Amino acid sequence: MNTADLGLPVDVPSTALFTDHYELTMLQAALKAGTADRRSVFEVFTRRLPEGRRYGVVTGTGRVLDAVENFRFDARELDFLRERGIVDERTLEWLAAYRFSGDIWGYPEGEVYFPGSPVLRVEGSFAECVLLETVILSILNHDSAIAAAASRMASAAGSRPLIEMGARRTHELAAVAASRAAYVGGFATTSDLAAGFRYGIPTVGTSAHAFTLLHDTERDAFRAQVDSLGEGTTLLVDTYDVTEAVRLAVEIAGPGLGAVRIDSGDLLLVAHRVRGQLDELGATETKIVVTSDLDEYAIASLAAAPVDAYGVGTQLVTGSGHPTCSMVYKLVARAESTDPKAPLLPVAKKSMGAKTSVGGRKWAARRRDEQGVAEAEVLGTGPVPADLVDRQLLVELVKGGTVVAREPLDAVRERHIEALDGLPLSAKQLSRGEAVIPTEYLVSTPV
Amino acid sequence: MNTADLGLPVDVPSTALFTDHYELTMLQAALKAGTADRRSVFEVFTRRLPEGRRYGVVTGTGRVLDAVENFRFDARELDFLRERGIVDERTLEWLAAYRFSGDIWGYPEGEVYFPGSPVLRVEGSFAECVLLETVILSILNHDSAIAAAASRMASAAGSRPLIEMGARRTHELAAVAASRAAYVGGFATTSDLAAGFRYGIPTVGTSAHAFTLLHDTERDAFRAQVDSLGEGTTLLVDTYDVTEAVRLAVEIAGPGLGAVRIDSGDLLLVAHRVRGQLDELGATETKIVVTSDLDEYAIASLAAAPVDAYGVGTQLVTGSGHPTCSMVYKLVARAESTDPKAPLLPVAKKSMGAKTSVGGRKWAARRRDEQGVAEAEVLGTGPVPADLVDRQLLVELVKGGTVVAREPLDAVRERHIEALDGLPLSAKQLSRGEAVIPTEYLVSTPV
Repeated sequence: MNTADLGLPVDVPSTALFTDHYELTMLQAALKAGTADRRSVFEVFTRRLPEGRRYGVVTGTGRVLDAVENFRFDARELDFLRERGIVDERTLEWLAAYRFSGDIWGYPEGEVYFPGSPVLRVEGSFAECVLLETVILSILNHDSAIAAAASRMASAAGSRPLIEMGARRTHELAAVAASRAAYVGGFATTSDLAAGFRYGIPTVGTSAHAFTLLHDTERDAFRAQVDSLGEGTTLLVDTYDVTEAVRLAVEIAGPGLGAVRIDSGDLLLVAHRVRGQLDELGATETKIVVTSDLDEYAIASLAAAPVDAYGVGTQLVTGSGHPTCSMVYKLVARAESTDPKAPLLPVAKKSMGAKTSVGGRKWAARRRDEQGVAEAEVLGTGPVPADLVDRQLLVELVKGGTVVAREPLDAVRERHIEALDGLPLSAKQLSRGEAVIPTEYLVSTPV
Repeated sequence: MNTADLGLPVDVPSTALFTDHYELTMLQAALKAGTADRRSVFEVFTRRLPEGRRYGVVTGTGRVLDAVENFRFDARELDFLRERGIVDERTLEWLAAYRFSGDIWGYPEGEVYFPGSPVLRVEGSFAECVLLETVILSILNHDSAIAAAASRMASAAGSRPLIEMGARRTHELAAVAASRAAYVGGFATTSDLAAGFRYGIPTVGTSAHAFTLLHDTERDAFRAQVDSLGEGTTLLVDTYDVTEAVRLAVEIAGPGLGAVRIDSGDLLLVAHRVRGQLDELGATETKIVVTSDLDEYAIASLAAAPVDAYGVGTQLVTGSGHPTCSMVYKLVARAESTDPKAPLLPVAKKSMGAKTSVGGRKWAARRRDEQGVAEAEVLGTGPVPADLVDRQLLVELVKGGTVVAREPLDAVRERHIEALDGLPLSAKQLSRGEAVIPTEYLVSTPV
């Protein structure tokens, strides 16, 4: 894809420098040692879910595909590497010709994952694969963290729509990715215009307290807003006195007023009072939007309140306590030599502490009971058992360097709903717990 | 500045869509109501520090200046807004001509801040100022959160250098801003090549476990690395057995080996053991770098260990428990009319809960005792008391739309060290506490 097609302010000409320095020094040393071309398999997985979480949400895969396609070293990048003396001339030459030519398989975006799930598998020469580690992890760790929080919030909100409005609480481009991830996780709309531009997510918004304060009276402000945006607009009613503002809002917009927004105070109490007042004023169809420091627990606690939509900012873009996932990108197998026919050997770090891995190129399948409910995440390195052949999770994303699996974001969003519906009901409980299904290994080689 | 000068993969042609939808609908309504041109003053401040933190670090100001300069609506942005029906034609015309023409004052970047500190003050017409809210908050909330964590880690590390290596744990462009913020807060280097490219921060790195696993033996891997990167390189010694790896490392590189890196296990214990072994092998100058899930507390706990440098990833880029600040952008004063001579009226939201503000255009000064140690953050709306005139904190950043205060990142980094040195000693304690100095208000108008 030409980068010009990608959209814009949120795109960058090349993703090649979103890379840790050591990827390039490893490349240089492997080129010199003659090991750079050994066929290698890297897997992305997490050793654990964030504490208390029942499932993870694979998100960012579409952005990974863009990043791999745009990973190339042009003159500016090469000049920088040369001037800083980061790698030698031979390595610079190799980088100048770099295009990923390998294969990538992965869980389809929106699918759920569990500890050990190989959410992405990158296969090719060591050299071409190792370079992609940093940018792939940046994308998946960020986007999946946001989507996991969004998914829990969507479960808590039930059929009421969620508005993503966290742009101001995170890096300006992370915000765009966060809107995308929130949409995958079940949010309906975003406040972020760049997310609307880049990903087509519906954008919404009407006014802030500043707009009321700009005007001489709340009446002037409401009048100005309704004159410009119509009676279907959402009026913010908590700048001064809520009861007076609600009265004024219906007086000015009429009973066809679209919605009122409450951004402070005891939302449960205020929502009940405002609903009663709106109904008394005949504005029975006017909706109530609440937007004050919400997280999945606050949303759940408002389930019985007369609230029609939730706006979520800070807690969404910071992953509701878990702003990143702990996904890693590990070499799990590599060829004995650079001979293209050399067999793959499983490899794994075997040292102190919890940082060990299971070696070998893995398949993954989700075992289900007779009702179709997931029972276990099964990972293996040998043949796939007959009863799991149709339950496999990995799909082909990149074939010989070419992206083969782009899809619209709405398909990803739908897939997440289906994936969640296939889990035991307790997956949607907000209370802390273990992964909702266990991970089982069927490893055919000693590790 | 021409955007081409800005550097690269991390830059974007325009920052205008890093904006919440409601900023544009407010603009449209104010244009129609005839209030858009009322002179307005917005202040950025936070109502509280993250729980337990003693001070905040103003970071991102330089990026804000770039964002304001590149905030413009070109054909692609305008077409998007038109096609989506986000604003009317009159507003689109106004946006097409938009360039910020007002004034911005702020705390110099790297300075510390406390609850209420007006870290940025944006002044101009309501229309031109309100549009900048989202992108300014995105930058300051993200960058200041990272710098605050970095600053505490730097205090804990004392004279030992800190390496920023969190790119893989956060959005790929947030990572670049995080490297910058970490550098402001006291980190010495980064793993992120894009941060080296964009901001000139020194980049470092040598190898990962994958490099060892790629080779048939650890000996082959160490040999390959030393052959390519020289004896001064850092060898990763915890892929298999640490003691054997350290022995091998010195055998292959000689006693001039630059450093060994330990990435797992009980770092205190292992560092002592490795130091003893290195000294016995005659590698008395070989350094020890540790890099496993460190935060400020883990760093402090290693103060007595024979460690020479710390690499910090996840906890740095997630703000060590506080991934965002709670800075807000509030209208604090506006003119009575669009007459250029109309006086400014202080304004503030007066509603439920903790979301109230102090109205009025404020000065800020730090009162110090006879030893020059900070005693209080004093904020006021009237005349500045004589003893505080020389202690004022706000400096001019943008004058009539032109940036007047660009500065090199090293100056910002130096300023932070000075600012921290001017606080009571307890500022550098890691234990939880209140803001290390109180905020006092000298407000001359009733609010």
